[in-house]
Amino acid sequence: MKPLTIRVHPDDNVAIVVNEGGLPAGTRFDDGLTLTEDVPEAHKVALTALPAGTAVIRYGVTIGTANADIAQGAWVHEGLLQLPAAPALHDLPVATNVTHHEPLTGYTFQGFVNADGSVGTRNILGISTTVQCVAATVEHAVARIRKELLPLYPNVDDVIGITHVYGCGVAIDAPGAEIPTRTLRNLALNPNLGGAPMVVSLGCEKLQPGTMLPQSTLPILQSSPYVVRLQDEQHMSFGDMVAAIMQMAKDRLEVLNQRQRVTRPAADLVVGLQCGGSDAFSGVTANPAVGYAADLLVRAGATVMFSEVTEVRDGIDLLTARAANEGVAKGLIREMQWYDDYLAHGGADRSANPTPGNKRGGLNNIVEKAMGSIAKSGSTAITGVFGPGERVTQKGLIFAATPASDFVCGTLQLAASMNMHVFTTGRGTPYGLAMTPVIKVASRSSLAHRWSDLIDVDAGTIATGDQTIEEVGTALFHLILEIASGRQQSCAEKLGLHNEMALFNPAPIT
Amino acid sequence: MKPLTIRVHPDDNVAIVVNEGGLPAGTRFDDGLTLTEDVPEAHKVALTALPAGTAVIRYGVTIGTANADIAQGAWVHEGLLQLPAAPALHDLPVATNVTHHEPLTGYTFQGFVNADGSVGTRNILGISTTVQCVAATVEHAVARIRKELLPLYPNVDDVIGITHVYGCGVAIDAPGAEIPTRTLRNLALNPNLGGAPMVVSLGCEKLQPGTMLPQSTLPILQSSPYVVRLQDEQHMSFGDMVAAIMQMAKDRLEVLNQRQRVTRPAADLVVGLQCGGSDAFSGVTANPAVGYAADLLVRAGATVMFSEVTEVRDGIDLLTARAANEGVAKGLIREMQWYDDYLAHGGADRSANPTPGNKRGGLNNIVEKAMGSIAKSGSTAITGVFGPGERVTQKGLIFAATPASDFVCGTLQLAASMNMHVFTTGRGTPYGLAMTPVIKVASRSSLAHRWSDLIDVDAGTIATGDQTIEEVGTALFHLILEIASGRQQSCAEKLGLHNEMALFNPAPIT
Repeated sequence: MKPLTIRVHPDDNVAIVVNEGGLPAGTRFDDGLTLTEDVPEAHKVALTALPAGTAVIRYGVTIGTANADIAQGAWVHEGLLQLPAAPALHDLPVATNVTHHEPLTGYTFQGFVNADGSVGTRNILGISTTVQCVAATVEHAVARIRKELLPLYPNVDDVIGITHVYGCGVAIDAPGAEIPTRTLRNLALNPNLGGAPMVVSLGCEKLQPGTMLPQSTLPILQSSPYVVRLQDEQHMSFGDMVAAIMQMAKDRLEVLNQRQRVTRPAADLVVGLQCGGSDAFSGVTANPAVGYAADLLVRAGATVMFSEVTEVRDGIDLLTARAANEGVAKGLIREMQWYDDYLAHGGADRSANPTPGNKRGGLNNIVEKAMGSIAKSGSTAITGVFGPGERVTQKGLIFAATPASDFVCGTLQLAASMNMHVFTTGRGTPYGLAMTPVIKVASRSSLAHRWSDLIDVDAGTIATGDQTIEEVGTALFHLILEIASGRQQSCAEKLGLHNEMALFNPAPIT
Repeated sequence: MKPLTIRVHPDDNVAIVVNEGGLPAGTRFDDGLTLTEDVPEAHKVALTALPAGTAVIRYGVTIGTANADIAQGAWVHEGLLQLPAAPALHDLPVATNVTHHEPLTGYTFQGFVNADGSVGTRNILGISTTVQCVAATVEHAVARIRKELLPLYPNVDDVIGITHVYGCGVAIDAPGAEIPTRTLRNLALNPNLGGAPMVVSLGCEKLQPGTMLPQSTLPILQSSPYVVRLQDEQHMSFGDMVAAIMQMAKDRLEVLNQRQRVTRPAADLVVGLQCGGSDAFSGVTANPAVGYAADLLVRAGATVMFSEVTEVRDGIDLLTARAANEGVAKGLIREMQWYDDYLAHGGADRSANPTPGNKRGGLNNIVEKAMGSIAKSGSTAITGVFGPGERVTQKGLIFAATPASDFVCGTLQLAASMNMHVFTTGRGTPYGLAMTPVIKVASRSSLAHRWSDLIDVDAGTIATGDQTIEEVGTALFHLILEIASGRQQSCAEKLGLHNEMALFNPAPIT
């Protein structure tokens, strides 16, 4: 492949090297630019001389200030950039960049309709837990259910224990403790779990079943037992406890097994977007392609969530401009402020992100990372904002506030009622969730080729010019419908790659 | 059984009801006391009239102040008690109650000696992880190793993945973040893992293998590869990653399999004590029996750890009095102050403990719970204090500071190098750890009988007068040596009950 760079925006004074393995000093590009030193793959080269104090611009925004003179053709690395202050959270543009998109009709998938109106892309028995004390017992029961019962119910895709480290030994009334509690509640109500939750409780824990899952919200919980309490007198042994869990599971499996997929509009999808192990390609290949697919989904009436507060914080002005109205803009600002305060309270700030691997992948700081991350959100108006662990109840493009931590974000998006997940990566990660299919999109072809059994979509073809953003995004849109319908499985599903839930608990433990 | 109460200390003006199911109004005890109302099992009855404002005394200490007139023979429940302020952390008695105990010689167990001098009670292959991204892959590999490789190495007891939710998406330089990092390091060095750690890393994560496990501390890490990095170029697929993990595991299993148990003094034991799901019996049956066993262990030269800051906080004066010297007393005060500050910072205090089940079991507040909890520590001098996640390097009775949360405490005690675990419970919990045997002691015979396959020791016999504290404690001491030697398995081991690790991370996530 001939020497190639990607410049994202006409104002940019840096571009990234596309070629696998990077390019050596002396490399001359078609436009005459010559490298004065070796530049690694995905890392930035100065397109003009950048004297100390110059704003270094990528994505059309200042990602930092040169802290030394940088020659034209030199490698612009982390040590040369001064991190700018985060944008202030006042005087932001509101709804100044709300674009209109034509509705898209006729796109459907095959889903399982729940009593609450939500639609599952999978038909899974979820066994919720109130407290970690029961986790090992539930996992023991789940293994037996999977082996002994599940084969008898062919319309049920899986059985999973929703285990976690919350529920007791925690300050359950402290500020922030509402987050893990509502997360557990809403996880139990995820559309892929059929709307028929069951709960295993110890009995003495702080998070009681009636708090976790108020019966009043769900008619089904009033008509049949839904809690196995291990400390209840009738359980005369460990074997008794497991038998009780299995019996309730059997009752639920009978109900779930009678369900059939029916044709539903794409509007019933709730697609969560996330990136993890990003590199400098992510913002020009995988994330824009996902953003294009997001636009198609929103036009088709679906719910699309983007998240990861620290990875949008530096572009808050871009987001408030895309807010559909002032209320949405205020919601965005509220979530940014909450996270700023949360980090400051813990003696940290947004610069705790990115990771060593992000940096090796050419991302110098959180500004550059955020500009790439935001590309996932496409170009439609932002129509709603929800807090961590809240159930999303609106259509359109939603900001569902979460930490950027992959597993915490994934868990909170599941609680937000996600029934499909799209995950982009540049460095590569064997990520997977048990509760919903995860489609993994690589930012680089070299990763997609190497991890062919882990990566579903290769967006690296955008960097090499072999495909356009529109082509990859459209293909992804169709793949989402296929996998949602159960006609295909994602790589993580085929391999059974299921990371544990990771709750966000900003409150102390005791 | 005739009506029975237990009064702990001559100064007490309340006693607890022993009889299963409680006692009805009108019940007359041998001493003439008559119940004026129904009193549940384990709950308190007023031995004298307690006018409003009177100090309610149990264990010889004020557990609260009556906030209404309480008649002689009435039920003293939570609603009648005002929680006292926590003892101040200044002007505490220092080393005023240091007792002398005769050394105990001749007690041994059969253990696996490690290169660093520590001794394992089990011979387990532990696969450490730097980050949650690799957890699902490691669990996949562990399942295959257990099935395909472990049967070939009969001297190896088990293979476990040390998976967790830390390592990336976290503010790794924030105050408090040193705790999870050193916990993961010291978990890898637990005596039961043979001193030959291996690590699975993703590659791009914040917690890099060299930070988690500095090579300089372990000669074995310099002489052979110990890290499988999933992002390394040679792994061409998920299958390749799993194969690489299995190959390194095989090399480790070859070494571990050559080890044999040898006779070691009881001094090589590092016994962690914990309680979970406590009731009002815990402090008069199970915990004092454990305390008696702790005294025997300390006299035999072993390390005995007690923990759970919020559950000793109200007895800090009792502990500083037992400190072997001023340095130890200062250490105790330092850990109390740290936790007071941590809770206050999060908008909570020690009253976030106890749980609903503790209360149903007769424990009205954290003062009463703490007085019972401290009984586990026996009567010897406290010779050392260690922070959360630190490796304990001293013999004798050690305060290893941890939260009270069962799984967080257990994880931190494992990091502290625990090779045997004793866990007391009144309400009952199916607790278990993969890395070390857990002996569960019930505070009530009714629980021990009902959960006969989960409870190893019935200390309820102390309440009924069928056994003494000394008898149960001595039997427990001998059981610890038997199980440590591998001649017996604890109930949790037999059932394979293994809760996941739960790290303590006081720092924010990003």
